[in-house]
Amino acid sequence: MTDRPQTPLLDQIASPADLKRLSDAQLEQVAHELRQETISAVSVTGGHLGAGLGVVELTVALHAVFDTPKDKVIWDVSHQCYPHKILTGRRDRIRTLRMKDGLSGFTKRSESAFDPFGAAHSSTSISAALGFSVARDLGGVTEEGLGDAIAVIGDGAMSAGMAFEAMNNAGHLGKRLIVILNDNEMSIAPPVGALSSYLSRLYTEAPFHDLKAAAKGAVSLLPEPFREGAKRAKDMLKGMAMGGTLFESLGFSYIGPIDGHDMDQLLPVLRTVKARATGPILIHAVTKKGKGYRPAEVARDKGHATAKFDMVTGEQKKAPSNAPSYTSVFGKTLTDLAAQDSKICAVTAAMPDGTGLNLMAERYPSRTFDVGIAEQHGVTFAAALAAGGMKPFCAMYSTFLQRGYDQVVHDVAIQRLPVRFAIDRAGLVGADGATHAGSFDIAFMANLPGMVVMAAADEAELKHMVATAAAYDAGPIAFRYPRGEGEGVEMPEQPEVLEIGKGRIIEEGSRVALLSFGTRLGEVRKAAEALAARGITPTVADARFAKPLDRDMILSLAAKHEALITIEEGAVGGFGSHVAQLLSEEAVFDTGLKFRSMVLPDTFIDQASPKDMYDSAAMNAEHIEAKVLDVLGVARLDERRLPAS
Amino acid sequence: MTDRPQTPLLDQIASPADLKRLSDAQLEQVAHELRQETISAVSVTGGHLGAGLGVVELTVALHAVFDTPKDKVIWDVSHQCYPHKILTGRRDRIRTLRMKDGLSGFTKRSESAFDPFGAAHSSTSISAALGFSVARDLGGVTEEGLGDAIAVIGDGAMSAGMAFEAMNNAGHLGKRLIVILNDNEMSIAPPVGALSSYLSRLYTEAPFHDLKAAAKGAVSLLPEPFREGAKRAKDMLKGMAMGGTLFESLGFSYIGPIDGHDMDQLLPVLRTVKARATGPILIHAVTKKGKGYRPAEVARDKGHATAKFDMVTGEQKKAPSNAPSYTSVFGKTLTDLAAQDSKICAVTAAMPDGTGLNLMAERYPSRTFDVGIAEQHGVTFAAALAAGGMKPFCAMYSTFLQRGYDQVVHDVAIQRLPVRFAIDRAGLVGADGATHAGSFDIAFMANLPGMVVMAAADEAELKHMVATAAAYDAGPIAFRYPRGEGEGVEMPEQPEVLEIGKGRIIEEGSRVALLSFGTRLGEVRKAAEALAARGITPTVADARFAKPLDRDMILSLAAKHEALITIEEGAVGGFGSHVAQLLSEEAVFDTGLKFRSMVLPDTFIDQASPKDMYDSAAMNAEHIEAKVLDVLGVARLDERRLPAS
Repeated sequence: MTDRPQTPLLDQIASPADLKRLSDAQLEQVAHELRQETISAVSVTGGHLGAGLGVVELTVALHAVFDTPKDKVIWDVSHQCYPHKILTGRRDRIRTLRMKDGLSGFTKRSESAFDPFGAAHSSTSISAALGFSVARDLGGVTEEGLGDAIAVIGDGAMSAGMAFEAMNNAGHLGKRLIVILNDNEMSIAPPVGALSSYLSRLYTEAPFHDLKAAAKGAVSLLPEPFREGAKRAKDMLKGMAMGGTLFESLGFSYIGPIDGHDMDQLLPVLRTVKARATGPILIHAVTKKGKGYRPAEVARDKGHATAKFDMVTGEQKKAPSNAPSYTSVFGKTLTDLAAQDSKICAVTAAMPDGTGLNLMAERYPSRTFDVGIAEQHGVTFAAALAAGGMKPFCAMYSTFLQRGYDQVVHDVAIQRLPVRFAIDRAGLVGADGATHAGSFDIAFMANLPGMVVMAAADEAELKHMVATAAAYDAGPIAFRYPRGEGEGVEMPEQPEVLEIGKGRIIEEGSRVALLSFGTRLGEVRKAAEALAARGITPTVADARFAKPLDRDMILSLAAKHEALITIEEGAVGGFGSHVAQLLSEEAVFDTGLKFRSMVLPDTFIDQASPKDMYDSAAMNAEHIEAKVLDVLGVARLDERRLPAS
Repeated sequence: MTDRPQTPLLDQIASPADLKRLSDAQLEQVAHELRQETISAVSVTGGHLGAGLGVVELTVALHAVFDTPKDKVIWDVSHQCYPHKILTGRRDRIRTLRMKDGLSGFTKRSESAFDPFGAAHSSTSISAALGFSVARDLGGVTEEGLGDAIAVIGDGAMSAGMAFEAMNNAGHLGKRLIVILNDNEMSIAPPVGALSSYLSRLYTEAPFHDLKAAAKGAVSLLPEPFREGAKRAKDMLKGMAMGGTLFESLGFSYIGPIDGHDMDQLLPVLRTVKARATGPILIHAVTKKGKGYRPAEVARDKGHATAKFDMVTGEQKKAPSNAPSYTSVFGKTLTDLAAQDSKICAVTAAMPDGTGLNLMAERYPSRTFDVGIAEQHGVTFAAALAAGGMKPFCAMYSTFLQRGYDQVVHDVAIQRLPVRFAIDRAGLVGADGATHAGSFDIAFMANLPGMVVMAAADEAELKHMVATAAAYDAGPIAFRYPRGEGEGVEMPEQPEVLEIGKGRIIEEGSRVALLSFGTRLGEVRKAAEALAARGITPTVADARFAKPLDRDMILSLAAKHEALITIEEGAVGGFGSHVAQLLSEEAVFDTGLKFRSMVLPDTFIDQASPKDMYDSAAMNAEHIEAKVLDVLGVARLDERRLPAS
């Protein structure tokens, strides 16, 4: 608390309206203080630092020039929104970022009128801004009114097809719409792709320091709407617009590149655009991720995401880890297998570090493909690699795989191509909250004909499943595993290739069978121990496969127990539903089997620690125990209250 | 049979290898005969005509110049593949197109080695071609070998984000890869979007008739690889390449526009590219959809899809319809509602006719948005329209909604925005086969928190559901309905707003309850009639909602009957799974309720008539009857064999 920065001017800003009475020089001072406050806050909370530092000046300039919340500023991905939250009435809670009951780490409609459209996945902002522009022109009504719509999108996010689709549509409709391309040459990983090279050429060919004078003087004099054509605007800006024909091809006027940290460029450009624009316009602002905080600037990931840290040294305060992360087990196992099999290759969509493929990329760069933020392309590209005789692993977070769902169906499953889906961040993920939860993949993968779906119960199981997927060539196969550390189990020297569609009995018991799919197995075992103290010894089984199901094992469990309970970290429609379908087809329900299926509840669960989230979801050991007692009709003897139910 | 065209040269072509020994003039003759044969075949089978006619010359030229199937020609969407099928050993079966056990209307890996990558949804071809190129360079092994990869993609398909993602990645990787942009200014509907205008400018500014001489003479002299830069290739082509900077921005060399019907341009350009290309190259070919068959050329849809027709007059032989199509009921009801409520608006992704929004577009053009082949953008655009106070209907086919799945989750469901999803082509669709089946939407929509999911049992119900969706403002809502004609029920004058989460009892009976979700209700009623003749009177209910479930009705049905059977036109994980979850939570299974869930089988079902497809799926009246008899343990008295089980 004592080392909070001095922020005399920022202290006077209760809302963006207060920025309107400040001079340009004062706005620059506000930006300086806002940067310090952002660093201070994230040092306490951890979270996304680099992206926010890169847009401090832009944040101040946007709120100073436009009339938020009537004007809609839409932050793409929105992990850069901390300075925006500080300026828009949430400074008092900024040190609760990403905590349970605290501020979300992303923009969120339910949190503030200044967040007109939430985000967390990338590349949605132009579509959203276009929607607001069109709603405005059609007489749509909102509480705060509908003014300008401004999308702020990074160069990495711009590489996703969705952004292109939106620009194509916006250029066609021709409505007044502002897109700010926040070009920091760095998304989570360095951006890849031809677009990135193109953008670099735009500003290496026209370094913005030459443009400062032009921007200051000339821009505000613009006499005519930009709409009349990019060429005209270009001439008038006297050298400001040196390229951007790609955007012009799509019907946008292009301004840039400008220095996104220079208020003397940002303010006049934004004011002019506000005064004059009539159609879609793209402002190309070059910024630096991590700007103004040296430990972030020099970090390999530019301070993308950080634990709590020491403000002076930048040193992160990470809790010691007891076990390797699932992600690293996947990455290491795959790299080892790739050493033995030259057909193994890997695809990531802009997540080499997050998916653990960085190791593979380092060792086998020619067989590791970062396709950019492009899950649709990534999945089909992997499908064709498989058709071409390779063994592709497509490593994506569960929630991002949703972006490539049609490609999974149409290009992989229908063609029975042996793509291996490594589904990371399956289940609840903690501080990133509902937008990053991997809740739906079991349902949307397991109902595809011919798809094999596995879930790892622990990190040793994951190792086996990577090898199983590598060895399986008859069609597509997927394996899911959660965020974070493993269970601390002993790791086998060599992975085993599992038999497809076979589960395993962990403990033989009686009366009730607990059939787990995935890493809830640890909680199931804890529950079983607690139950043993009450004289109930459940059978514990690990299904390993949601598809194909181990019919023999499941039917045998059903036959030998009065109750069967499935547990999975996914929404209804997944593993438990497949088990129910089997039991129904085999007329097992007719016998009065007490069947229960523990799935994620039918709500989006806000950020918290994973333990808290699973408490909200009623999926921890005590809930499993309570479920067993309830099913068996055993009264609880103690008064212990459950955290949730 | 008697009016088959004379095709003396084509008759000698058993496979593409036979083209190699023909002169250019003979190849032109082959193209002419191939066109006649295509028209003749489609006049018998119906199907996609216009697209195939537009690529007859290109098909001949590609197979003459490249070494298929070692070289991989990948037809985007692939509804233009009929001439390709005729040339690649399938001419003897070409008059079985789109029929049960006949040729697929699309390319299909299992059908021919000349179909290296199947398609039916758009915009996948560049990703696939890139995958083959990379596999080739990594030493991938396939039976036919791996040579060049050539994607043939339409201008409409090019507007999808996925194509952009693939080009961005291809431009970055720099591998030899050929993309042929088949620019016919017409996908299913006239293409929309800024890209389309851009492409038009490219060839209006450089009409290709001026380029013919240049193409013939100069191209084959090219001394240097194109890879050295688009500019160089451009200079050498002496005016052939007049633009294309958009593609050059993405790292492609650009050649064009050329006349895609002129073999004197196609052959030398393809030969030169084959001889010289080292990196990614885009050939911009301008063609005419429906080319060479006047009834197609003059049709509004350029003969996109046709019934059987009279070859001379072009008149289509359509079976008379007994009831309005679901699609038209949706379109008309929505347009009527839009007349009363100015906030109602509609979004389609390149399917104004297919979704019935053409009527709305005609009446309320400013409130009807065709965003192009861009489901990702379309869904998020609709989400922002809702955030802006409008009432957007997002009308998409079930199978194409898969393209926007992440946007449904992330932008609509998490934000609880009242987007109305009109899900057409739900269930099995007939001649378009597995790629167009709407099998998964119940599962992938109903497991999203806060989503309301309805299915219409008949066209009157659909009318009510459109009105229900319009009136519902508390969050997202979806309603699904099948392809084709309604049931012929009487249509209400005015639609009713249904109570959310309430089903209806159709007939009270005993012993067994049949709980239908969607248009299987007609078959369920037929089954009930047949059962009545045996003295069994089932209760018949229409769930209307998969979410929220009508808990009271379902629990009451379960309590009053020994058996409960759900029926839906969807894969496991959907309605039946939600019912099972309810029954499990309420401990109903403990009572020995005989529960069955009839869902689509775990296979992709090939094209056939819808009736035949539902026979394969064991979901027609006789199967429902058999299921009831089986559940009740009633022996069948007759020996009638079921078509499938």
